Amino acid sequence: MKNLLIIGAGRSATALINYILEQAKQHNFFVTVADADVELARQKINGHSHGRAIWLDASKPVDRREIINRHDVVVSLLPPQMHLEVAQDCISLGKHMVTASYVSKQVFRLGDEARLRALVFMNELGLDPGIDHMSAMQRINAIRQKGGKINAFYSYTGGLVAPESDDNPWHYKFSWNPRNVVLAGQGTAQFLEDNKLKYIPYRRLFRQYRLVNIPGMGDYEVYANRDSLMYRDAYGLQDIKTLFRGTIRHKGFCDAWNALVRIGLTDATFPIVDSDQLTYHDLMEAFLGISQHTGSVKDRIAKIIEVEPESEVMQKLEWLGLFSKRRIKINNATPSLILENLLLEKWALKPEDKDMVIMQHVFEYEINRRKKKLTSTLVMKGVNSQETAMSRLVGLPLGIFVKLLLLGKINPTGVNIPIMPEVYEPVMAELEEYGVRFVETEE
Amino acid sequence: MKNLLIIGAGRSATALINYILEQAKQHNFFVTVADADVELARQKINGHSHGRAIWLDASKPVDRREIINRHDVVVSLLPPQMHLEVAQDCISLGKHMVTASYVSKQVFRLGDEARLRALVFMNELGLDPGIDHMSAMQRINAIRQKGGKINAFYSYTGGLVAPESDDNPWHYKFSWNPRNVVLAGQGTAQFLEDNKLKYIPYRRLFRQYRLVNIPGMGDYEVYANRDSLMYRDAYGLQDIKTLFRGTIRHKGFCDAWNALVRIGLTDATFPIVDSDQLTYHDLMEAFLGISQHTGSVKDRIAKIIEVEPESEVMQKLEWLGLFSKRRIKINNATPSLILENLLLEKWALKPEDKDMVIMQHVFEYEINRRKKKLTSTLVMKGVNSQETAMSRLVGLPLGIFVKLLLLGKINPTGVNIPIMPEVYEPVMAELEEYGVRFVETEE
Repeated sequence: MKNLLIIGAGRSATALINYILEQAKQHNFFVTVADADVELARQKINGHSHGRAIWLDASKPVDRREIINRHDVVVSLLPPQMHLEVAQDCISLGKHMVTASYVSKQVFRLGDEARLRALVFMNELGLDPGIDHMSAMQRINAIRQKGGKINAFYSYTGGLVAPESDDNPWHYKFSWNPRNVVLAGQGTAQFLEDNKLKYIPYRRLFRQYRLVNIPGMGDYEVYANRDSLMYRDAYGLQDIKTLFRGTIRHKGFCDAWNALVRIGLTDATFPIVDSDQLTYHDLMEAFLGISQHTGSVKDRIAKIIEVEPESEVMQKLEWLGLFSKRRIKINNATPSLILENLLLEKWALKPEDKDMVIMQHVFEYEINRRKKKLTSTLVMKGVNSQETAMSRLVGLPLGIFVKLLLLGKINPTGVNIPIMPEVYEPVMAELEEYGVRFVETEE
Repeated sequence: MKNLLIIGAGRSATALINYILEQAKQHNFFVTVADADVELARQKINGHSHGRAIWLDASKPVDRREIINRHDVVVSLLPPQMHLEVAQDCISLGKHMVTASYVSKQVFRLGDEARLRALVFMNELGLDPGIDHMSAMQRINAIRQKGGKINAFYSYTGGLVAPESDDNPWHYKFSWNPRNVVLAGQGTAQFLEDNKLKYIPYRRLFRQYRLVNIPGMGDYEVYANRDSLMYRDAYGLQDIKTLFRGTIRHKGFCDAWNALVRIGLTDATFPIVDSDQLTYHDLMEAFLGISQHTGSVKDRIAKIIEVEPESEVMQKLEWLGLFSKRRIKINNATPSLILENLLLEKWALKPEDKDMVIMQHVFEYEINRRKKKLTSTLVMKGVNSQETAMSRLVGLPLGIFVKLLLLGKINPTGVNIPIMPEVYEPVMAELEEYGVRFVETEE
């Protein structure tokens, strides 16, 4: 029997645990789910004969190593900063390790040791990063094999709410980590256009968006991701002229989000003292700073963000309750945390709401002196607020990869991300059986 | 003989060393200046019979402790992050310690131990922080003693170029740490106005400035400092309604600096890869990001920052050479470092240039049911680019305090800032002999 350890039983674990338990009898897997909240782990195992839940405080090295040692493969769903310690354990105990997180420099440096010990350390194997790598590499390699030369690659992903569950003026609900949504884009976005580096500082990020057509869905806004160039070498696109990665949002979102940024509500650098003594209206007033304008706080905010008082942007702010006399619920919180808490309430999926993930790749390439454009689009909706498209698209690639690894069908040793055909071909093929299908159009 | 150790012989040490050597014979002081650059220390001592220069790498604990142990008082002019180690040495070796830097939380926590051992740890004893504390507390206590109640306190400081040496369109030259000037204001500024907290995020900081009249000098711009409220309790102003601290700049500076912020040139979060392969013009073009506009890079930058192409702001940017085809000199540098390097060249004091420091306090208070306003202003000019007003105003308070401490005339034990009459009265009195005179007007 092959033993799999999954550390962390949170939201992102569900689809992975369900998938691997479905496969467990047939392939003789045994699945241990370890979490500091053992009851949560137990719920996810749900009495399955090939699974068990155990208590683990992953910050305790002795316990952690003792449990890792009894398994063949470890999936770490811990917060990213804890992966390094687990990776070091796996190196010294001779275990494979799989994550959906970005590879840190420290984990990357374990590559030689992992290869030397014939260990597989696979990372960035969720949705974004994950399916984006695999689906892009499939198409990049297919174009190359035909003799094509890629000039431009645009890649967009969005975790959104499905149109049938879209009932708020922002046309957005949370299907993933709210903190990442609130802090998204801080710093300067970088991309490549016509062989030139381009920079967009945070203050212009939500103003300088593109409109992108998603076949069958209409137009969406896309703002630039922090670093589009990170994977240029990994993807073998050293000679590409345009490389742009972005985040998809519903039309109207970027202008309204930009208003929150302009007001100052996404600042995570300082606590607002006694914030639970303030109303949202007080907070808005405080953000007027040294204002020359007169009138209501709402009108003065409109002037500061340079929109009309009755504009759609102001209506969205008002819908959030930012001008209400309701008290802020958390104390000594940063503006961004106050905003996150408010949005958690306003942008929550209702139990039967469906989320929706959209991913689109656009390749412009030349073949036999002809210019071509390939557009490859994935649209997937969730079942309800528990079984989200987001959690499936993060959990399934992990599950499929782990199955193949436990069965000895693939063996990409070293510290890697899923950009080799050996990995992405079988994983993408099986994902298609689960409805993860990219629709292609070529011009 | 009393032994003083000064660690660090850099720019800020000159006025301190000169002052204390002047006093050395009369009071029987011996002054050791320790620096990793012993030649620099030797120049500053300049053969004085009561001084010597020694080599010290302050990051080496054994050497540092050995040297500290042979002195009575230590002045640390090291970078702020190194003060804690020196303070711990001083605690264990029983030495007094003096700095011009902000008190860190870690140093603050040594207060009980310092008091227990009857040691004096005085900090924030330069210009700002330093003379601002002392001059403000003198006036606050004077108003209180008359029975006045302070409703509002505004305090502004600027390190500027003297009008007679002002020959560039920015009307600014560096007299202090350029890095601090380039990064100034990042985060959110906080102050109190009419009993309400006010916030100004970085993106509005250089737009929401005030105009302030400096008697005899004309109008200047003042932008809000990061945290005006930090000293509310320390100054005993718990009931104050308005508390605002700001930085003074020449008229026209804030709008032009805001343009640099808007373009993205003050970002310190990411390196521009191969920046030495780019010209300033290339860099400006990269910062256009996704631009809908057409025309020259200069015209498109003007559109992005919403000014006319021939405006004063654009003339200032052009004067800096930001649209020139000259190569950037440093590689893989952040935008802010590229800007700092360019400004170091453009905003350098020429050898005979004079700098100028302005400090102004405005108090609004009530006494016998009458409203009064006290304005207290210091304007001081330097001699040349070496003997700057800035370095004198940082070094003299340190020197005067150290003299009084070595002579046993004051003994404020514990970790403190100079807000007690025992300290600020004699220090301010002697500063006046050196021309540090606040001019007062009362309405």
